[in-house]
Amino acid sequence: MKQNRLERVIRGMEAMGLEQIIVSAPASVFYLTGAWVRPGERMLALYIHKSGEARLFANRLFALSGNVDAPLSEFDDTEDPIALLNQFVRPGKLGIDKSWPSQFTLRLMEARADVRCVLGSSPVDDARMLKDAEEIALMRESSLKNDASILEAIASIREGMRESDVAAAYNRAAAQNGASGPSFPTLICFGANCAEPHHTTDDTLIKRGDSVILDVGLAWQKYASDMTRTVFYGEPTDEQKRVFDLVCKANAAGIAAVRPGVPLCEIDRAARKVIEDAGYGDYFIHRTGHGIGLEGHEPPDVSATDTRLAQLGMVFSIEPGVYLPGRFGVREEDLVCVTEDGVEVLNRLSHELRVIPIE
Amino acid sequence: MKQNRLERVIRGMEAMGLEQIIVSAPASVFYLTGAWVRPGERMLALYIHKSGEARLFANRLFALSGNVDAPLSEFDDTEDPIALLNQFVRPGKLGIDKSWPSQFTLRLMEARADVRCVLGSSPVDDARMLKDAEEIALMRESSLKNDASILEAIASIREGMRESDVAAAYNRAAAQNGASGPSFPTLICFGANCAEPHHTTDDTLIKRGDSVILDVGLAWQKYASDMTRTVFYGEPTDEQKRVFDLVCKANAAGIAAVRPGVPLCEIDRAARKVIEDAGYGDYFIHRTGHGIGLEGHEPPDVSATDTRLAQLGMVFSIEPGVYLPGRFGVREEDLVCVTEDGVEVLNRLSHELRVIPIE
Repeated sequence: MKQNRLERVIRGMEAMGLEQIIVSAPASVFYLTGAWVRPGERMLALYIHKSGEARLFANRLFALSGNVDAPLSEFDDTEDPIALLNQFVRPGKLGIDKSWPSQFTLRLMEARADVRCVLGSSPVDDARMLKDAEEIALMRESSLKNDASILEAIASIREGMRESDVAAAYNRAAAQNGASGPSFPTLICFGANCAEPHHTTDDTLIKRGDSVILDVGLAWQKYASDMTRTVFYGEPTDEQKRVFDLVCKANAAGIAAVRPGVPLCEIDRAARKVIEDAGYGDYFIHRTGHGIGLEGHEPPDVSATDTRLAQLGMVFSIEPGVYLPGRFGVREEDLVCVTEDGVEVLNRLSHELRVIPIE
Repeated sequence: MKQNRLERVIRGMEAMGLEQIIVSAPASVFYLTGAWVRPGERMLALYIHKSGEARLFANRLFALSGNVDAPLSEFDDTEDPIALLNQFVRPGKLGIDKSWPSQFTLRLMEARADVRCVLGSSPVDDARMLKDAEEIALMRESSLKNDASILEAIASIREGMRESDVAAAYNRAAAQNGASGPSFPTLICFGANCAEPHHTTDDTLIKRGDSVILDVGLAWQKYASDMTRTVFYGEPTDEQKRVFDLVCKANAAGIAAVRPGVPLCEIDRAARKVIEDAGYGDYFIHRTGHGIGLEGHEPPDVSATDTRLAQLGMVFSIEPGVYLPGRFGVREEDLVCVTEDGVEVLNRLSHELRVIPIE
């Protein structure tokens, strides 16, 4: 077990009045044990007692023996994993990971009238929200690889290309830069598709005058990156340039507001105010950002409703956008880490206006 | 709602003594409503009451309004979806889908002392296990596309190729044949890697004398296919030919045993006996097959421990193999459907010995 991380989890358990918890999310199990298991329909559970006792329960199929930094109880498909787990669960309250499939919670409850299951994810979720030095170093590297890969994708854009071709160029570049894969489906939007924040990359052909949104991320050593740049295919109109400048200013204002102790909703406000003051407030239709780490979306939210304070080690996105239906859209996104001094921007790629010349 | 399917689910609820259930698996929700939602961390729930009342609860983000064949209650990220759901849940026993994330089950239990949550997946799982005519037609087509795609992948094999190159060739062929993607990570094994049934496709180079396992599947109209063929790079040795023939005979014996009313464990036995009788029993180290449909692995199992009877409309794989550690391996897999007459093999590609000549 990673002892520093386990100790933080146990302090979180104490704060919640939980003597024992079950951790099941693959990213959380990896965070504490170093083993990444995709259990499919099989049971995966890391039992933690406030005494510091911890034990991983996993199917023998995943061959963790010797590869995991925790005491291990293995089982096979003919055994009942709940019965095995129940040899360790004490009577009383038991915190359960939010994502554990209900079949396990319900079977445990059925077998144990002396145990009361309650939602108990936050000891691990809160620990994971504040990245340690090792994690920040990995996330910095993941974002640098993302910077390099998006540049290759931008350089690939030319006449006759489809959104899916640009996505393939990014995916190839990310793989060549050492990523294990994209951290989410690579999102490339041309023209009016840029005005739909939940567009899915398709076979739309590029055409003169298009804004091009590249919203991309990769996984490196399990840590996700996530960034967006908007470029133009052919000389942008005055309005396109004005909106692009505005979104870059909102991105900078959001980043400038980040420091320990600032409520996350005020960071959202700082970015949003720039866009509202310019009269485009109705066209910025999503939150300013989201936490990220071993998963692409993690707590906290950078939104009007997340009133938690920015804390040392939080990593989240700042990604304001303006979406003009049927016409074009602009989003500019970086990942930032909250530092003692204020903020470190993990992406190094500038927000300059990038125009792809048409031959 | 698809009424025939809903009626079968309600009969299953009655058999289990359940008056109400919550269905949450995306494939199960699709099966009943026609809407495929990947909810991520958000709540997705289809409430079914034995009276025939059914209602889907989904985040507004998924834009189901007008696109789903069921009464719909939508919510956004600022609302409590459990409170919304609780307006419809009656007091008493409530069956819960096995995969619903525990956070929802636990929050519902916390809010409703008058409700007793129990595991209640099987009404839908059992209905899904017996495919109807519409599903069988789609699965037949999915397997035909898989036959065509694997042939293209086999035809691509030549000197200098890596496992990952052959996987890419399959994935391209599947896409060109209309698949929405592979239904599981395309598995290509060369030589000694064939002896590890859970090998992950990597950059191993092909070499003279290799057995080559192609274990591939695609998703078409949401329905998965899954097949395996073993080919040889250069003339196989006598032992390779002998093992190949043996595995083909085991595949044929497994298929020949399929008919309504036969216990699944006897189908496993029929295939396994061929391999045991030839002295290779210790090298056939997995079950003979698994159910398949909207998901790549579904009930039932074709294994020594699944004593259920084969029933009309079950679709499962027959995939015996022989794995000789450090040397080579052979697996031959088809999908079959249980029919009134006995069995329909969904794959049409022969099990002939395929030798790739080396120039």
